[in-house]
Amino acid sequence: MASNASDPRIHAESASTGTVEADSASNRVTTALSGGVAGAEALARLLAPVLAALAAGARDRGGPAPVGRPAALDEAWRTAIAAPAGGAAPAGGLAPADGVGAVAALTELVRLFAAGSVDPADPRCAAHLHCPPLAVAVAADLAASALNPSLDSWDQAPISTTLEPAVVADLADLAGYPPTADGVVTTGGSESNLLGLLLAREHAVRARTGTSAVREGVPLGRYRIFASAVTHFSVHRAAGLLGFGEDAVVPVRTGRDHRLDPEALDEALTRAEEAGELPIAVVATAGTTDLGAIDPLPAIADVAAKHRTWLHVDAAYGGGALFSSALAPLLAGLSRADSIGLDLHKLGWQPVAAGVFLTRAATNLAALARRAEYLNPADDEDAGYTSLLGRSLRTTRRPDALKIAVTLRALGRAGLGALVDRCAALATHAARTITAEPTLELYQPPVLTTVVFRFRGGSGSPSGSGSPDEVNARLRRTLLATGRAVVGRTEIDGRVWLKLTLLNPNTTEADVDGLVADVVAAGTAAADTEPGEDAT
Amino acid sequence: MASNASDPRIHAESASTGTVEADSASNRVTTALSGGVAGAEALARLLAPVLAALAAGARDRGGPAPVGRPAALDEAWRTAIAAPAGGAAPAGGLAPADGVGAVAALTELVRLFAAGSVDPADPRCAAHLHCPPLAVAVAADLAASALNPSLDSWDQAPISTTLEPAVVADLADLAGYPPTADGVVTTGGSESNLLGLLLAREHAVRARTGTSAVREGVPLGRYRIFASAVTHFSVHRAAGLLGFGEDAVVPVRTGRDHRLDPEALDEALTRAEEAGELPIAVVATAGTTDLGAIDPLPAIADVAAKHRTWLHVDAAYGGGALFSSALAPLLAGLSRADSIGLDLHKLGWQPVAAGVFLTRAATNLAALARRAEYLNPADDEDAGYTSLLGRSLRTTRRPDALKIAVTLRALGRAGLGALVDRCAALATHAARTITAEPTLELYQPPVLTTVVFRFRGGSGSPSGSGSPDEVNARLRRTLLATGRAVVGRTEIDGRVWLKLTLLNPNTTEADVDGLVADVVAAGTAAADTEPGEDAT
Repeated sequence: MASNASDPRIHAESASTGTVEADSASNRVTTALSGGVAGAEALARLLAPVLAALAAGARDRGGPAPVGRPAALDEAWRTAIAAPAGGAAPAGGLAPADGVGAVAALTELVRLFAAGSVDPADPRCAAHLHCPPLAVAVAADLAASALNPSLDSWDQAPISTTLEPAVVADLADLAGYPPTADGVVTTGGSESNLLGLLLAREHAVRARTGTSAVREGVPLGRYRIFASAVTHFSVHRAAGLLGFGEDAVVPVRTGRDHRLDPEALDEALTRAEEAGELPIAVVATAGTTDLGAIDPLPAIADVAAKHRTWLHVDAAYGGGALFSSALAPLLAGLSRADSIGLDLHKLGWQPVAAGVFLTRAATNLAALARRAEYLNPADDEDAGYTSLLGRSLRTTRRPDALKIAVTLRALGRAGLGALVDRCAALATHAARTITAEPTLELYQPPVLTTVVFRFRGGSGSPSGSGSPDEVNARLRRTLLATGRAVVGRTEIDGRVWLKLTLLNPNTTEADVDGLVADVVAAGTAAADTEPGEDAT
Repeated sequence: MASNASDPRIHAESASTGTVEADSASNRVTTALSGGVAGAEALARLLAPVLAALAAGARDRGGPAPVGRPAALDEAWRTAIAAPAGGAAPAGGLAPADGVGAVAALTELVRLFAAGSVDPADPRCAAHLHCPPLAVAVAADLAASALNPSLDSWDQAPISTTLEPAVVADLADLAGYPPTADGVVTTGGSESNLLGLLLAREHAVRARTGTSAVREGVPLGRYRIFASAVTHFSVHRAAGLLGFGEDAVVPVRTGRDHRLDPEALDEALTRAEEAGELPIAVVATAGTTDLGAIDPLPAIADVAAKHRTWLHVDAAYGGGALFSSALAPLLAGLSRADSIGLDLHKLGWQPVAAGVFLTRAATNLAALARRAEYLNPADDEDAGYTSLLGRSLRTTRRPDALKIAVTLRALGRAGLGALVDRCAALATHAARTITAEPTLELYQPPVLTTVVFRFRGGSGSPSGSGSPDEVNARLRRTLLATGRAVVGRTEIDGRVWLKLTLLNPNTTEADVDGLVADVVAAGTAAADTEPGEDAT
């Protein structure tokens, strides 16, 4: 480590020359810790090769995605690790007996990683809800990694123990919740949906039997969860995990726009009650993955209240609309939910994970309460040493709230809202371009920032060989394998559709038009290609 | 952003001068993305203030923990955010309407964060299993954040989709598993224990009823899980989550050394079977949180086999011993488990999260299988586009495997083993020092890297006011509140004990002796203080 620990600037030169340090110095760098004043200096030395490798890997890739099919890409990185270029480092794969040193490992693996990743910051990468993160959020997150607090006890995370609730409180307020609300940062919508249904289970079982389903193995076979037919599969997974079984999720009819029909919900609940089943929760969606559909929350809240059923809103995607004064009205009724999940790693530009689970009343979190003598003994709590142990199913837990806090403070709510508005405008533009293109069919005007459409080419039966479905599937794989574009794909009513998920606020209208043109070109080629063969 | 995008070195000067950039330039920095070549440059600009703030915060703290009681520390950061020093930034708390800009937000919040955290890289921070991370792992993790891959589909994570299984395979091999083994990276031991019990549930329910407990809500009230009386509470949490109820966990007797008694296990299983209960799993622990106790795995595996019961080994802590040729024999029998959890954010020096779940046969993961048309359509899989969706309960999931891969390659297995050995040697030294100190009582010689002991002072009843228990509890709070040391605490057989968790390989024997002397001094003061009052 350098002597001047007070000036931790990145030492790019030591990395870019590629010289191997003398053994002992190299070993000091390799085993340096990230904490303390000296840690900042050690990080400065090692972040230089990381940033250089990120840039080099991006240049190697030269576009939104690596060129090649999966097997070839897999082979490529394994070969590179087995015999690195230059031959300076020994072979031995990922876990050799003796190491190659920190700078060498970072330089080679991060470059391969960057070259072999898709980059959501490239305008032609527009398939999924994995957003391009803000650099400020990534930079803030480094601090959390460097000091490695764990939120299961105060004495592992003093400031984080109050910072996370403060961030959660601000987001609860944004969602329209009263000050009695509370919550926790999660790994994402799947964990938030699980927590919502766990609390709903506890609420319903306690009300019905007076016992705790967390404590006792009560029969769960008659309980039912009601959600739209297009609810996220993590709702099913949660039902399976919690002992209800996935079949306990009752699919409720939606319109062609994928919005849950409140009348159908009311009927389904009534029918279940008449059959002796026990409704435990209604799950509404604010922003489906494909269409961004937002269920009619006020009407659903009415139905849930009528049937005295827990209402959980999966706002993993749509929750970001709260930052936009133009789009926030779409979420009217959200605050009537008993629990809500938001993902700031979608419309919030955070690196994963930045999920947030909220519940209307802090007392609902009692189902998660936990006492552990080595973490939150009662007399420590009496002395003011609070703990977040009783808010999460995880024990060790990193403070993902830090990057959220820094981002909120850096951009402000208005700044994030401007990014949301920009992506929504790009979706509107994409829909217009697609509508104007005769070879493409738009599914419907966009709600949030996704655009669902398909290429009209292909022949024969709707889904057989050479069919429109196959052509759409193949054109997408071709764009991916040639590294030209990463376009999404889904299935609606048994047909294959393409999807642009526009989460990059730096994308221009011209970029969108280019992306649409790429799809048309690939579609035309795919329709002309031998059925079953992906064009490249 | 600077023009020279090919040379992304940190621009420390722009941060250290504290000048506010012109509005438009500031806004560009604030909303810059982390991807691509330009992203590396943007990160360089923003990492400079982060590293400076980490160093400044460490100096502000001046030791292992912030000085002050929780309420005062909470008040301090909130005040600082409401009215930052210098007055350059507007007030408005964490989520103001308009932002303060990236550099300002990072500079102030990361410095407060560092000053308000405990630092596991400080030798006097030795309470818990939150390790001081290696700088190389933290640096590698930045790359994962910058590109933000998500492991739920190939086209969000091309290289990560094969890198994670490669890392998992290397760790499965290290654990002695055959090539048929498989697994997944998790958020930690709690998630790994949950996965182990989920697979065990599916295995037992299928064998007994021919149906899937994931699919259907089968009665779970008669199933039982067997674990030592000191098993981690996440086993209970998993049982509660999975519908068994926490009461389904049958505590099995251990010796004073906290190792499960295989004969008692055999008896408990036999008794349960005779009572018509259905044993679903045995959970053994390889490294308890307090004593580092490792259950007798070969004998337990025999008992589990005899009763045809799933064996899950929670090796979250002890799994790190696999890197050490001296300590690995303690884990003999591990490979007979049906599933294993390891945490490389404990004896692996990773920032959280770096849990690993392993199972002996990849086919066991069928309980997690999932098809989603927008993520892993069948024809894409046929074309070679594999997906890790069916390995995790999470959907969006960051590639924590990257930092593990880089660390393994940088240090090698031997390098990590040397760190494990060093920490074990420190524990042995600490035990020796404690034994030589008449005012301290050692619980037992250390097994891994924890040392449990207590101060002998105090009077009256064992646990009342002014009692030995209260004195030990108070002396620990005093060390914490005065920022002198972060020492662990637990309860064994109803008595309060102190604990050193030695995970810092840079700690010296003199550091350990100083820490023990701090405890003695604080204990002496606490014994002399008015009962009920914490000394400061």
